[in-house]
Amino acid sequence: MSNVKTFSKSNLNRDLFAISMDTSLKTSLQTQLRGALHDIISASPDLVGARLPSSRTLASELSISRTTVQAVYDQMISEGYLVTRQGSGTYVASDITHLSQPQPIFRPAAPRTEPWLPFQAGLPDQSLLPGRQWARHLERAWRAPAPELLGRPDPQGWYPLREAISDHLAAWRHLKCDPGQVVITSGAREAFEVIFHGLLGTEKTVAIEDPCWPKLHTILTDTGNRALPVRIDKEGFAVDRLPNEAHAAIVTPSRHYPTGVSLPLPRRIALLDWARQTGATVIEDDYDSEFRYRGQPLPSLSGLDGLNNTIYLGSFSKLVSPALRIGYMVVPKRLLQKTLGYLERTGPRASLIPQPALGTFMNSGEFAMHLRRMRRVYARRQTHLLGALTPLSDLLDVKADSSGMHLCIGLRERLPDQVSDLDVCKLAHKHGLQLGAVSKHCVLPNKMQGLVLGYAAFEEKTLSDAANRLVSVLRSAC
Amino acid sequence: MSNVKTFSKSNLNRDLFAISMDTSLKTSLQTQLRGALHDIISASPDLVGARLPSSRTLASELSISRTTVQAVYDQMISEGYLVTRQGSGTYVASDITHLSQPQPIFRPAAPRTEPWLPFQAGLPDQSLLPGRQWARHLERAWRAPAPELLGRPDPQGWYPLREAISDHLAAWRHLKCDPGQVVITSGAREAFEVIFHGLLGTEKTVAIEDPCWPKLHTILTDTGNRALPVRIDKEGFAVDRLPNEAHAAIVTPSRHYPTGVSLPLPRRIALLDWARQTGATVIEDDYDSEFRYRGQPLPSLSGLDGLNNTIYLGSFSKLVSPALRIGYMVVPKRLLQKTLGYLERTGPRASLIPQPALGTFMNSGEFAMHLRRMRRVYARRQTHLLGALTPLSDLLDVKADSSGMHLCIGLRERLPDQVSDLDVCKLAHKHGLQLGAVSKHCVLPNKMQGLVLGYAAFEEKTLSDAANRLVSVLRSAC
Repeated sequence: MSNVKTFSKSNLNRDLFAISMDTSLKTSLQTQLRGALHDIISASPDLVGARLPSSRTLASELSISRTTVQAVYDQMISEGYLVTRQGSGTYVASDITHLSQPQPIFRPAAPRTEPWLPFQAGLPDQSLLPGRQWARHLERAWRAPAPELLGRPDPQGWYPLREAISDHLAAWRHLKCDPGQVVITSGAREAFEVIFHGLLGTEKTVAIEDPCWPKLHTILTDTGNRALPVRIDKEGFAVDRLPNEAHAAIVTPSRHYPTGVSLPLPRRIALLDWARQTGATVIEDDYDSEFRYRGQPLPSLSGLDGLNNTIYLGSFSKLVSPALRIGYMVVPKRLLQKTLGYLERTGPRASLIPQPALGTFMNSGEFAMHLRRMRRVYARRQTHLLGALTPLSDLLDVKADSSGMHLCIGLRERLPDQVSDLDVCKLAHKHGLQLGAVSKHCVLPNKMQGLVLGYAAFEEKTLSDAANRLVSVLRSAC
Repeated sequence: MSNVKTFSKSNLNRDLFAISMDTSLKTSLQTQLRGALHDIISASPDLVGARLPSSRTLASELSISRTTVQAVYDQMISEGYLVTRQGSGTYVASDITHLSQPQPIFRPAAPRTEPWLPFQAGLPDQSLLPGRQWARHLERAWRAPAPELLGRPDPQGWYPLREAISDHLAAWRHLKCDPGQVVITSGAREAFEVIFHGLLGTEKTVAIEDPCWPKLHTILTDTGNRALPVRIDKEGFAVDRLPNEAHAAIVTPSRHYPTGVSLPLPRRIALLDWARQTGATVIEDDYDSEFRYRGQPLPSLSGLDGLNNTIYLGSFSKLVSPALRIGYMVVPKRLLQKTLGYLERTGPRASLIPQPALGTFMNSGEFAMHLRRMRRVYARRQTHLLGALTPLSDLLDVKADSSGMHLCIGLRERLPDQVSDLDVCKLAHKHGLQLGAVSKHCVLPNKMQGLVLGYAAFEEKTLSDAANRLVSVLRSAC
């Protein structure tokens, strides 16, 4: 790992220059310096043999006289802690272990970073990020940062990035909004926190899809709300089963997570009618619909609504990289003042470092180019995976998906009854595959059964190998 | 603002290339493309006169035949939406307003970033950041990112940065910890959320200092706890007033916020005894003690405790820049597994983008050099401010502070009774000064009265001018 520190000896100067001297104390400067130097040397056995700064340098760094420093050096030479070499300076003595018992800091090896296993879902192929371009945007933004970057931070996030997001939404998601309605967050979790703590209030009954993103339950509990799961059917979220007591609904209309179903227009209209009639808020989580391979996408639900009773959530984790930790929310104009008030009270959490770089990356057109390139790559990978899974067509109902980054495969119809999706996932994991189980996304009884296969982040060769392994896993299980 | 988008016409290509075509629909590709192109042109009046891509380019981008594109271009030329110029291509017609009523998006001017007003506290001088070095660290980390940066993210944060923090704490804060005990957060708010939701549990009674950082009350309420303020005295946190029912105490022992009092050793020992006896946890918020100008700093409370019943909180907001949004917590080894479990359940929020750059910035020694430089600069600025405030010595008890980035000036003794610190702050704000009122940091009755004057971020000339203005404000009020 190239970033691991390797200069322990040069740390001596850092530690020495960090000493503070106090002329107001009864203890003499000489005693203070001797004590500090002793502590530093005793604490670090790896300083043995390290060269100390000249008495002139240390005196200047600590704003004390050179005589004081020289007196301390002389004292510690006589005590055996330091040695002097003719004409070459003062060094930490090589055998000081008998003088004190240094307590070494326990240092485990750096943890190995785990690689992603094939079929991990929700992951873009980050190896295809235009690294040079992205690094250049970062470097340009921070080499001589604009005064605005160093001023009082905008609680909604860096304005030019919000403007770029507004342009992106108009072009890709048929959602017209003012950059003033866009709030940069550190991801969906923060967005939900702002929504419930800042806008809607807590102790709400929140209708969610079943199945859904599993962390949503934790987030709703953590933010002090009650989740009310509504089972989806073949057309997605069952709007007619929405209870009137719900204060909000969290939905993935463009592409239901994880099944991939797109909510048809009549249901969208019914959902917005429900919100208008009951005064509820619909929160649209639009997590990967930019990757559409066939067909005109339906406009976003929030676009259809004109952002009246809807809040739109987006993220760059799947479009660029999860390393960014940059997401955003778009709020109705009438909620803007409340949003701002909450953000000013609690402060921003998204780092400002990536924001100007992401803004120029988007405005330069490189972002859209990257999305189009990824769309072609992911489309090819999906086709490839579908081909590699044909040997399983008697067991699984594998169908092409018009968008997204994973395939969701229903299980119940053709597999033996006693084999659950969890069984398949566990077995596959033993063979190095990271499949998702649809039942783990459900809480209602009669959990749906299915497999989630992410393909976006993996090369075609990896997908072939992984599909072959999956074939033998399933053959052995059935 | 240099990052604001200026290429509206080149957005046409971006929008066009984002169109998806669906061969499985009943609608012909020609109709689909015509509809999409019509929508794009109608929505953006500023596209008038923009040049369209050649039919060959657009056909290739959309994976459809060139004939289809040419047919749509021809149709829309005949409808009046497009015009063709001999040998030079196809353009959006200049008068399409009669053809459709485009709805322009309301776009307010970009908000002006507010500058920081003199005496704003808690702010480093970011104009003195080594921008070139910092930008180079960012560029190097992300130009060809290490595979570890793109793998499954470590829920505790980037390991080499945690190692650098562990080294820094050993050298500057006499706190020895394993890098495995360090957790990177997006700031104090996230740290408290992890502590209460993940480690200690909610519905706790938490002793806090009065006065204290005002946001602490909100954070404790938001995380589902009860704050129990304990009034400080001249020696800081009054440990003997700590009620036994408290489950935790949040303290600033190195430098009480905002008064600047350092907790004496006997009280530190008593506080740790209390924690040991009652099973409570002490949370040490060590926010700016690296900037010490005189005297050996007391070791951190957590260092004294050996991190048994203490959790240590640090941040780079004041040491480097608030733009980073990078803080950290150091947890006792016995709480590590619980911490990890919570982080894995809820996911990281701190952006990974700045972390490797901050790690190499620290390991290269540039960070320590920056801290030493800032320490000299801030010490000079404090001395300068003290001098500029001498004309007020009959009204205010202005004393030098051995550390920190602001002065806290008690008010009650010499000012007329009817003048409160809030009055002074309001009046000063009218004269462009951002003073803090100590009473706004209190909730207990008989609120303390005082002024908080940040000096770190302001040049000496600015401080002189601001001090002069403060002199006339106070003279006019008394």
